[in-house]
Amino acid sequence: MQIGMLIIGSELLQGKQREANLHFLGEFLRTYHREVSFVQIVADKKNHILEALESLYKNCSLVIVCGGLGPTPDDATKEVLAEYFKKEISYSDLAHKIAQDNYQRMNKPYPDHHTYSLLPQAFEALANPVGFAPGLWFSHEKKSLMALPGVPREFQTMLKEHLPKRTSLESAEKFNLVTVRTKGIPEEKIFQELCPSLWKDLEVYGDVSSLPQLMGVDVGLKTLAPPQVIYDFIASTPLAPYVWSYGVKTLEEKIIELAQSKKITIGFAESCTGGLCAHRLTNTSGASKVFFGSVVCYDNSLKEKLLKVQPKTLESFGAVSEECAREMAQGALKTLDVDIALSLTGIAGPLGGSVEKPVGTVWIGIALRDKVSAKKFQFKGDRENLKLRFSQAALFLLRDELTI
Amino acid sequence: MQIGMLIIGSELLQGKQREANLHFLGEFLRTYHREVSFVQIVADKKNHILEALESLYKNCSLVIVCGGLGPTPDDATKEVLAEYFKKEISYSDLAHKIAQDNYQRMNKPYPDHHTYSLLPQAFEALANPVGFAPGLWFSHEKKSLMALPGVPREFQTMLKEHLPKRTSLESAEKFNLVTVRTKGIPEEKIFQELCPSLWKDLEVYGDVSSLPQLMGVDVGLKTLAPPQVIYDFIASTPLAPYVWSYGVKTLEEKIIELAQSKKITIGFAESCTGGLCAHRLTNTSGASKVFFGSVVCYDNSLKEKLLKVQPKTLESFGAVSEECAREMAQGALKTLDVDIALSLTGIAGPLGGSVEKPVGTVWIGIALRDKVSAKKFQFKGDRENLKLRFSQAALFLLRDELTI
Repeated sequence: MQIGMLIIGSELLQGKQREANLHFLGEFLRTYHREVSFVQIVADKKNHILEALESLYKNCSLVIVCGGLGPTPDDATKEVLAEYFKKEISYSDLAHKIAQDNYQRMNKPYPDHHTYSLLPQAFEALANPVGFAPGLWFSHEKKSLMALPGVPREFQTMLKEHLPKRTSLESAEKFNLVTVRTKGIPEEKIFQELCPSLWKDLEVYGDVSSLPQLMGVDVGLKTLAPPQVIYDFIASTPLAPYVWSYGVKTLEEKIIELAQSKKITIGFAESCTGGLCAHRLTNTSGASKVFFGSVVCYDNSLKEKLLKVQPKTLESFGAVSEECAREMAQGALKTLDVDIALSLTGIAGPLGGSVEKPVGTVWIGIALRDKVSAKKFQFKGDRENLKLRFSQAALFLLRDELTI
Repeated sequence: MQIGMLIIGSELLQGKQREANLHFLGEFLRTYHREVSFVQIVADKKNHILEALESLYKNCSLVIVCGGLGPTPDDATKEVLAEYFKKEISYSDLAHKIAQDNYQRMNKPYPDHHTYSLLPQAFEALANPVGFAPGLWFSHEKKSLMALPGVPREFQTMLKEHLPKRTSLESAEKFNLVTVRTKGIPEEKIFQELCPSLWKDLEVYGDVSSLPQLMGVDVGLKTLAPPQVIYDFIASTPLAPYVWSYGVKTLEEKIIELAQSKKITIGFAESCTGGLCAHRLTNTSGASKVFFGSVVCYDNSLKEKLLKVQPKTLESFGAVSEECAREMAQGALKTLDVDIALSLTGIAGPLGGSVEKPVGTVWIGIALRDKVSAKKFQFKGDRENLKLRFSQAALFLLRDELTI
C-alpha cells in the first residue's frame, strides 16, 4: 500500500504558517509500520490541487487530503474532488447531522447557509469531534481517499479516529523501528572514521538511517530483529561511549527517568534561555516528580536578589562569566532547595556581543550539595536557535551528571 | 516565474523529524513578493526523487532541492540530478576547495575519501559558510535549479546568500502583504455574521486570505494599495474591536513595544506553563528592556517560599484557584520588583484533572501596584498544546492591560 498526502493551503507556501500534520501522520503510520511515500503541498488553487490529486491518486492506493474544507471561499477541496471523480456535489443528511451536532456541542447557533452539508456524491461524511467541518471518505476499486480539515487538532483527532477503522493498517507486517541516540560526535565521523563498517554491519539487520539532531546523531534501523539485538551490537562497537539513549526517549524523558530513579530533585537559574530549560522539562508529563522550579533572572538585579550573586562578581567579571554561572547555580540550589541546580548565562544576540564574549557564548554552571563547576560553550545561530542550543547543552550536562 | 521545492528525506515522511525549510523559503520569497507554487516531499529513494524532479522541473522555472547532499550512502541527490540531466558525475576543483576550506574553518582534518568534491557536469558548486557540503547550481534555457543541504541552518544561510544573486528576484512587482490580526472571534463568525460583506469588500483591493491562528484569526491581503488604506478600511468595520494588531508583529513584539513606550516592567509567576511565558517573551530581541524575570514555581513549596502564597490558601482552595493565582501574581510583583506581574496556575495534564478542575483549566492572575484580579480559562488539547494556550491567554491579557 503506497500512501500519499495532499496538503492544501496557500499560507503554508507563503511562509505564514508552519505545516504541522505531515509529522503527525508519519509518526501515526509508523505505529502501524507504514509510511507516507509521496507528499505534495499546493496553494488553494483549483488547477494546482487537481494536478497534485491526479498524480497522487495514480501512484497511491490511499491518499490523505488535508485542508480546504473550511467555510471561506478559498476552500476548494470538495469542488476539486467532485471534478476529479466526476461526481455531482449534493446535500448529505449525515454531513448535515454531523455539522449540526458540532454546533450544538459548541453551544453555537447553526448558520442558515453554509457548505458543511454538501459533499460529492459517493463520498461519505466523517464525524469531526473537535471542530465544525465533517471529513470525507471515498473508496473505489481498491483505492481510497480521506479528506480532513487542516487545523492540526481536527486533522489529528479525526485521523486517529477514522483511518484504522477504514483501512487494513492493522494487518501489516510488524517491523521494529530501532533508534540509538548519540551525542558528541558528528555524523560523518561516526561512519567514516570511528566505525567505517557500521553502516554495512547494520544493513544485515534491515534498513539503516542516520539522522542528525540538535547536537547529536540518531542511528535508526527498521528491522525484523528484536531491538535488544541491535542495542547489544552497537554497545559492542566504538560508538558505545557516545550513546545517550538506546531507544527513542527524548532527552527530557531520560532526565526525568534518571532523576526519579535516584530520587534527585532539579532546578534551574536561567538568564539567556529565559525559561526554556524549565519549559522543556515540563513538556514531559511526570516532570513534577523531580523538577521543582526555575528562577528566570533576566535582569541582573534578580541574580543578586534571588540567587545571591555577589555585586562585585557582576562588576568584576560581568554576568556572562564562570564566576557568575557558579554563583547562580549555587544560589538556585539554595533558593529552590533542590539536589542539583544548573545555571545558564550567555549572549543569545543579535545584540550584546563583544570581541571577548561574542554572541553565542554561554556559561553553564552546575551545583550539587557538595560541589560546583561551570563550563563554557560557543555556538552559532540566530537568537531562537542559540537559546535552543544553550538549553540542549545544559540538559546534556544534567543527563551526564545524573548517570555518574 | 513558478517556483518549485523538492524536499528529500525519509525521516520527514516517517515522522522522525519535522520539516523546517519550507516555512523559511516561503517567508524569504515573500520579501521578494514571490511564493512557492509546488512542493513535493519524497523519501531517499532514487526513483521517487527522479519522478518528483521531473514533475517539478517541467512545471517550474526555478526548482529548489533540499537535502540528500550528505556523506551517507542514502544521500542520492547528486546521482539523481546527473541521471535526470544526463550529465556525468565528475571532480570539481571549486567543490573540492569549498569542502576543504569548510573543514579548515571547523578545525577538522579533511577526510581522504568523500563525495563533496564530486558534481554532475555543468553544475556549479556553491559555498556553504556554515557546514561541510557545497550546494549546487544549474541553469539552462531559462530554467534553473539550486540544490542545498537539508540541515536548516545550512539551507537557510545558503539560500539567503546565493538565491538573490543567481536569480532575478529583485525585479518583481512590489505587492504589499497586509495583515490584520484579530482575537476573540472565530473565523466563520467574522465572515458570516459580523461582517458578511468584508471578504468581497476587501477583494476590491486584491487577494484576500483568512488564517486561523492560536486563539485568533489573521486577515491577509496581497494588494497594490498602501497598507494604511486597508487598515483604515478595516478600522471602519465591526471587526475593529477585535483587532489586536494592524500589521504582522507578533504578540510578543506588541507587548514589548507597548511596555517600552509606557516604561512598564514585566514579570511572571509560572506554574503550569513551566517557563513558557518567559521563554516566549525572551525569544524577541529587546525583551531585556521590559522583561525582568519569572519565578517558575512548579513545586508548591516554591509558591509559598518565593511568592508568599499563604499555606492556608493552598490548603483551602488548592493551587489551581482564583485565590492562589491572585497571591502568586502579587507575590511575583514584589519578588521580581516589576510594574505588572502575571501568574498562571492550571492543569496541563494528561494527569491531575478532576471533575471540578478538569485538565485544561487555568487561573491567570494579573497584579499591578494598586490592583489585582484573576480570570479562569478552560481549554482543550494535549499537554504541549495546553501550555501554549495558557501562555497565549496570559499574553493576550497582558497586551490588553498594556493598552488601557
